[in-house]
Amino acid sequence: MRFAHRHLLGIEHLSQSDITAILDLAETYVELNRQSAKHSDVLAGLTQINMFFENSTRTQASFELAGKRLGADVMNMAMQASSIKKGETLIDTAMTLNAMHPDLLVVRHPQSGAVDLLAQKVNCAVLNAGDGRHEHPTQALLDALTIRRAKGRLHRLSIAICGDVAHSRVARSNLILLGKMENRIRLIGPPTLVPPHFREFGAEVFDDMREGLRDVDVVMMLRLQRERMDGGFIPSEREYYHRFGLDNEKLALARPDAIVMHPGPMNRGVEIDGTLADDINRSVIQEQVEMGVAVRMAAMELLARNLRSEAA
Amino acid sequence: MRFAHRHLLGIEHLSQSDITAILDLAETYVELNRQSAKHSDVLAGLTQINMFFENSTRTQASFELAGKRLGADVMNMAMQASSIKKGETLIDTAMTLNAMHPDLLVVRHPQSGAVDLLAQKVNCAVLNAGDGRHEHPTQALLDALTIRRAKGRLHRLSIAICGDVAHSRVARSNLILLGKMENRIRLIGPPTLVPPHFREFGAEVFDDMREGLRDVDVVMMLRLQRERMDGGFIPSEREYYHRFGLDNEKLALARPDAIVMHPGPMNRGVEIDGTLADDINRSVIQEQVEMGVAVRMAAMELLARNLRSEAA
Amino acid sequence: MRFAHRHLLGIEHLSQSDITAILDLAETYVELNRQSAKHSDVLAGLTQINMFFENSTRTQASFELAGKRLGADVMNMAMQASSIKKGETLIDTAMTLNAMHPDLLVVRHPQSGAVDLLAQKVNCAVLNAGDGRHEHPTQALLDALTIRRAKGRLHRLSIAICGDVAHSRVARSNLILLGKMENRIRLIGPPTLVPPHFREFGAEVFDDMREGLRDVDVVMMLRLQRERMDGGFIPSEREYYHRFGLDNEKLALARPDAIVMHPGPMNRGVEIDGTLADDINRSVIQEQVEMGVAVRMAAMELLARNLRSEAA
Repeated sequence: MRFAHRHLLGIEHLSQSDITAILDLAETYVELNRQSAKHSDVLAGLTQINMFFENSTRTQASFELAGKRLGADVMNMAMQASSIKKGETLIDTAMTLNAMHPDLLVVRHPQSGAVDLLAQKVNCAVLNAGDGRHEHPTQALLDALTIRRAKGRLHRLSIAICGDVAHSRVARSNLILLGKMENRIRLIGPPTLVPPHFREFGAEVFDDMREGLRDVDVVMMLRLQRERMDGGFIPSEREYYHRFGLDNEKLALARPDAIVMHPGPMNRGVEIDGTLADDINRSVIQEQVEMGVAVRMAAMELLARNLRSEAA
Repeated sequence: MRFAHRHLLGIEHLSQSDITAILDLAETYVELNRQSAKHSDVLAGLTQINMFFENSTRTQASFELAGKRLGADVMNMAMQASSIKKGETLIDTAMTLNAMHPDLLVVRHPQSGAVDLLAQKVNCAVLNAGDGRHEHPTQALLDALTIRRAKGRLHRLSIAICGDVAHSRVARSNLILLGKMENRIRLIGPPTLVPPHFREFGAEVFDDMREGLRDVDVVMMLRLQRERMDGGFIPSEREYYHRFGLDNEKLALARPDAIVMHPGPMNRGVEIDGTLADDINRSVIQEQVEMGVAVRMAAMELLARNLRSEAA
Repeated sequence: MRFAHRHLLGIEHLSQSDITAILDLAETYVELNRQSAKHSDVLAGLTQINMFFENSTRTQASFELAGKRLGADVMNMAMQASSIKKGETLIDTAMTLNAMHPDLLVVRHPQSGAVDLLAQKVNCAVLNAGDGRHEHPTQALLDALTIRRAKGRLHRLSIAICGDVAHSRVARSNLILLGKMENRIRLIGPPTLVPPHFREFGAEVFDDMREGLRDVDVVMMLRLQRERMDGGFIPSEREYYHRFGLDNEKLALARPDAIVMHPGPMNRGVEIDGTLADDINRSVIQEQVEMGVAVRMAAMELLARNLRSEAA
């Protein structure tokens, strides 16, 4: 099976077999990460640079650990504190790092499309770690691996994506991936947060959790992205939780073996009941984080293989 | 000799033989660190995460170097800049990192007890790098190693701990450790900074340096923790130095071979005379820093051995 | 050929043969960095600490990658966030790090002379990564390597250094290096930014780009250091670009094969026309960055060899 991509910019560029290739390789890293000695030399000699133009605990940490465990030389650039302040443009910064010959460049940026633009300017493999409201491909891949492990398959499932769809690159990448794998997707949220044009992805849209959750296999909650709501409607937390927060009562409408997901960081008592989030019989939220490291190891290995075969 | 602990949360959990085991192993790392090539593979394949919820130059650097020199994959989390801002709780952050399968988690937190709480929630070994006014076990261990090397023993010494005892986790951990090793301890400071309940640790209390320092073997100065004095009495620096700052004249009352210690960072001219701090015939302040790296290497090795024997 | 220095504090201490030794060794690292696997073990077992008291994207990243690719254990200290805030002095901070036994200490500091002072207090090799308006030796060395590769030689060239000479350690280190290698140097800029005492370096001074650029082989633009202009004359950007910004029209007065350099980060449209900066037929700005990593690898290797022969 061949993964013929230079970059990992978004799910939209991946085929079913690309997705399966990443997930299958990731399974081997799930096992490695559970060992006491969890280091390999798959990326030895390569340089990975993490350029985060937005703060992130979990995604940056996940990519950093993934690279270090694979033996890469890993460097973090905290871009807020950097030359950006001195008026340098994104592209100049990227060109500067490119001249240092990184092999893997992991980029998060607040503007949709910024990572694609940057990928056109550099010689290395670029991994999109989230750009604006556009894509967050490794999040969708880790969600897919989590679902596949919990449900035994990644197709013909009924999956609800709930909450602030409008501001969410997580929702967008998941919609594309889960659609490609031939699942039935429902989007649930207030009309202001689930714009009707999302129907184009083949999803059904609901504004009532009790209707939307009926008989689903997977309930994927989203973070309320207050920081991306510029001037628009901002619901009160109490009202939002009442109507769209997930609790046991609403979850009872889903299938009895339905799993609960959240990309984190959670607002407990806003998007989800805290007790439910911690219920290991229903919630796979911690497993999502675990899968994240494995999926990023797999994606970087596949991209690095292509770099090496180019060089040879 | 067996070190049968899963975590290093505080000196209060350690026996005399635990303390000796750490210090003996640390001696070998003192030697290693003085070599030109100072790298080992004792922690190879393991992941160490440093979670510092308070700024720290020396402690974080010391743990980071300790882990890197032992071959661990080391990741620093600057927690101020992270998801904490997005409203995530300490426990959620810890659970997230835990799901990434670290082996060693080094934590500093401004609240007493936060590190113990966190240790109950994770699967890895937790090292307390300072929590509120509670404990700072590796500081007490590095102080103990420094004293043992300078004095040839770590028992039946007369040791003065001077200054802001009330706000100091360093003092508290040292009191416990030095007490366990059967030393005579004196606490010296103004009553506002040396609360009488500290007598429960078996220490004598003085509010006059000239009385308290008489014939001691070790003078341990503390940092004035202005940042932890919320609303209470804050002495003027000049007055404080006059009464409680260490200078040669006051030191003359101690034993002629008494050593001078300070955990750093020093306020020169407040807690201690700058010339005395730099006097290598009396001051072991630089050696304390050196011992710090060695003690942390030893503590992490002992904890890692237990992790590995669990896994086997 | 012997490189007999303990530190790399400034170009002023280097001989012609020292400079050639660094550049020759750097050439081998240019090749290594262009490989897919770009890691060596030349610094294995050694500890490198980067202490940056000023923000820097490119210089810190360049030193960090250089050390990691050579197998050192590398630690970054973000000094703004550190004990400096707690009132510790530069020297105390340096002494503290010194006690942790680093082998290589890379220091940037806003005050001229601070790095020299620090080097007197520590046991390790110190590399100056820029101190105030004083020196930035690795920048001058990377510029020299870039020129030597583009022009085939590093002597008897006519080189213009243009712009804010007064506030620039880059200009100062370049003046010294290029003078030692027997080049003809011209300084071009408004009198406020090119103080007449710079003639002491043997440079000709011009305040008209069209005069100064005539027939030069190399045009080295400088960054306008607004952050270092305290209270003095600050030109408007538009006026500055009109008179001193480099564009194709002014460049036409130089030799037809003249190269264009800039230490970055660039203010496009202030110091240099953006299109010209990106013109790979004239601009070697990206190559300067590439040479930076190689020169730093070479400098650290030469200093480490001396440390090891001392220890033996």
